[in-house]
Amino acid sequence: MKLMRVTAPEDVIKIINDNFTALAAESVPLDKSGGRCLAENIYAPEDVPGFDRSTVDGYAVLARDTFGSGEGIPAMLECIGEVLMGKKAPQIKEGQCCLVHTGGMLPEGSDAVVMIEDTESTGTLIQIFRQVAPAENVIHKGEDLKEGVLALSAGHRLRAPEIGMLASLGVSDIAVHRRPKIGFYSSGDELVDYHTGSLAPGQIRDSNAPALLYLASQMDADIEYGGILPDIFETFLEKSKSMLEKVDFLVFSGGSSVGSRDFTAKTMNELGKPGLLVEGIAIQPGKPTLLASCNGKPVLGLPGHPVSALNIFAIFGEKIINRLTGKAERTFHPTVSATLSRNISSRSGRTEYVRVKLQADKDIINAVPVFGRSGMMRTLAEADGLLVIPAESEGLRAGTKVKITLWD
Amino acid sequence: MKLMRVTAPEDVIKIINDNFTALAAESVPLDKSGGRCLAENIYAPEDVPGFDRSTVDGYAVLARDTFGSGEGIPAMLECIGEVLMGKKAPQIKEGQCCLVHTGGMLPEGSDAVVMIEDTESTGTLIQIFRQVAPAENVIHKGEDLKEGVLALSAGHRLRAPEIGMLASLGVSDIAVHRRPKIGFYSSGDELVDYHTGSLAPGQIRDSNAPALLYLASQMDADIEYGGILPDIFETFLEKSKSMLEKVDFLVFSGGSSVGSRDFTAKTMNELGKPGLLVEGIAIQPGKPTLLASCNGKPVLGLPGHPVSALNIFAIFGEKIINRLTGKAERTFHPTVSATLSRNISSRSGRTEYVRVKLQADKDIINAVPVFGRSGMMRTLAEADGLLVIPAESEGLRAGTKVKITLWD
Repeated sequence: MKLMRVTAPEDVIKIINDNFTALAAESVPLDKSGGRCLAENIYAPEDVPGFDRSTVDGYAVLARDTFGSGEGIPAMLECIGEVLMGKKAPQIKEGQCCLVHTGGMLPEGSDAVVMIEDTESTGTLIQIFRQVAPAENVIHKGEDLKEGVLALSAGHRLRAPEIGMLASLGVSDIAVHRRPKIGFYSSGDELVDYHTGSLAPGQIRDSNAPALLYLASQMDADIEYGGILPDIFETFLEKSKSMLEKVDFLVFSGGSSVGSRDFTAKTMNELGKPGLLVEGIAIQPGKPTLLASCNGKPVLGLPGHPVSALNIFAIFGEKIINRLTGKAERTFHPTVSATLSRNISSRSGRTEYVRVKLQADKDIINAVPVFGRSGMMRTLAEADGLLVIPAESEGLRAGTKVKITLWD
Repeated sequence: MKLMRVTAPEDVIKIINDNFTALAAESVPLDKSGGRCLAENIYAPEDVPGFDRSTVDGYAVLARDTFGSGEGIPAMLECIGEVLMGKKAPQIKEGQCCLVHTGGMLPEGSDAVVMIEDTESTGTLIQIFRQVAPAENVIHKGEDLKEGVLALSAGHRLRAPEIGMLASLGVSDIAVHRRPKIGFYSSGDELVDYHTGSLAPGQIRDSNAPALLYLASQMDADIEYGGILPDIFETFLEKSKSMLEKVDFLVFSGGSSVGSRDFTAKTMNELGKPGLLVEGIAIQPGKPTLLASCNGKPVLGLPGHPVSALNIFAIFGEKIINRLTGKAERTFHPTVSATLSRNISSRSGRTEYVRVKLQADKDIINAVPVFGRSGMMRTLAEADGLLVIPAESEGLRAGTKVKITLWD
């Protein structure tokens, strides 16, 4: 019989990068831009801050008026008033000072601020117990961002800090890549909707749909669920065609049988050129995965086994979504460092993903493998995350320091 | 002048845990439950799987009919047909077999499955080239979850695997803790809405609001933004009172001046008992943080400086939200292991959060500190994450292995 041609995981990632690209740009308001990637360079339209500001609560002074002052020999300055927040500051002359709050505008004639705890007020005369250097406790106009500088480059993903920075610049609409729309079908004659109360013999509930839809919703994408496709090729192809027209990325959660897998592969080749690119991935669990490019749109066929389906979607589904959103590939990924609690052997030649539970024991975190067949839900819900064993490794010994990628 | 009474970060967390608790339970459909925490134990209402299933594509057999068979001496079995997916399987007798797909129901009379690659079909006679043991390639009724067992405990957070597990059990509505609603005000007379085009002298745009609203939206909470409060105590108190009635958690992004800080503290003591609990946190940046409990509801006063505000909300704001959603405290947190690129000194006595940029250099990831004043946006947008220097440390040397918590 025909053997499955498997592709190494790193080659699958290369195929994803070579075949798919960021979606078109659109303009969105800043408060809807979180998680999106910039489709344009942003240059600072003005200086930030727009004026010299105090970084402390205190008195704005001419620094040289404080030179030589100290605990026992205070300088005495005349206070001319207070800088009101959000208002232009009054002007001061030599020998004068002005009360200023953190973030307040520096008065013309002053060049530094003495912290309030280093002063004492006696009516309109202020005693200064500490000398300050010019520019001390001041942030200058344009010191954060100078008008015209590149503030953020195209491709930068907008997190909370970037949103804050753009807001401070007065940028309220920005060009970002469109949010991907994912079409999702389950398939397999054994599947029934998960709301089904009582099952007939041989039936199982479609548990992959709600699990994968939630996973995808966490990845800055919109989802359209098309329901369960029957194992009838004409229906399969027709429904897939009309879904693919509406979406940017089509996902099949395969029936686990050879039949629905064959339908999926055949459909992928009919949906557009070049069609099927990956017939299987050298990864465990999740080997029977299909990937196609149909007229520039990615089409992914996931294995039916829940553990495999989630594993593949979390790795390659996210890579595809990142590609569509324009998110840059990262060389670093957050993990939890832990100590392996027992030996794990590994079939050589495949990258293995082992589910582990993390158990804290004082300052040590132990990674305890959760064993079970790939169809078993319980093993997934018990696991905190995944440990990767590279294809060339024959296994890992108890006590090895490992890095765990959390599920959530 | 009065010194700020600061609380150690670990004591602030204790105060949060002691004063706030999970919100009431509500019933939600499974496909809206992602990220929420169970408010009930879930017991399996039925066996999963509900019938003995094949885990491979092959022939269902009586294992002892294959004993002794091998490459050169195949067993010959009569094929009585095929198990249709989602249908009850036909019955087999000794000497017979039946084609079955992955996930298909095991025929009555069989107890194992021979993989299709170990067989050859010659009409209705099937040659079996490999013996199988009883139960081989079979998952038994209830092997994943037995009817009546505790499937998930109250407090468990629902991720994709849990949603899949509950769907496979036919659980479609579940009791989870209510999603917190956060009320949010900015304050400070120097602030104007970030949509403002041209600024008057002394004004700055309210950049914290959009940044913090996005951060909060990432934490499974709903947000109501109330706008910018003027530095007028009566307005401050009245608006805060009416907002607190509608929400579960009230957040002030403070003006940076002493004035708005005083108003926030005074308001907290008027909003409900016991009032102000924390007047400052021994943390850098973010020291001037206020925390109150007002009739059981948390009220947080963030510093006005953008870096401080984001830092505090990412740490303590999230802790409060987790508490309200019923999410269990975790002893492990994902980080990126990196090598510090230069010496960092630290003022002793305060936990310091240093912004760092991560730079991959072959297999090494370098953590490069991004220095800048706490008001500077640019330093935040340049940083990938935060490095924590404990209060008792005097600093870290270049070359030290460090763990970085990513911003996103």
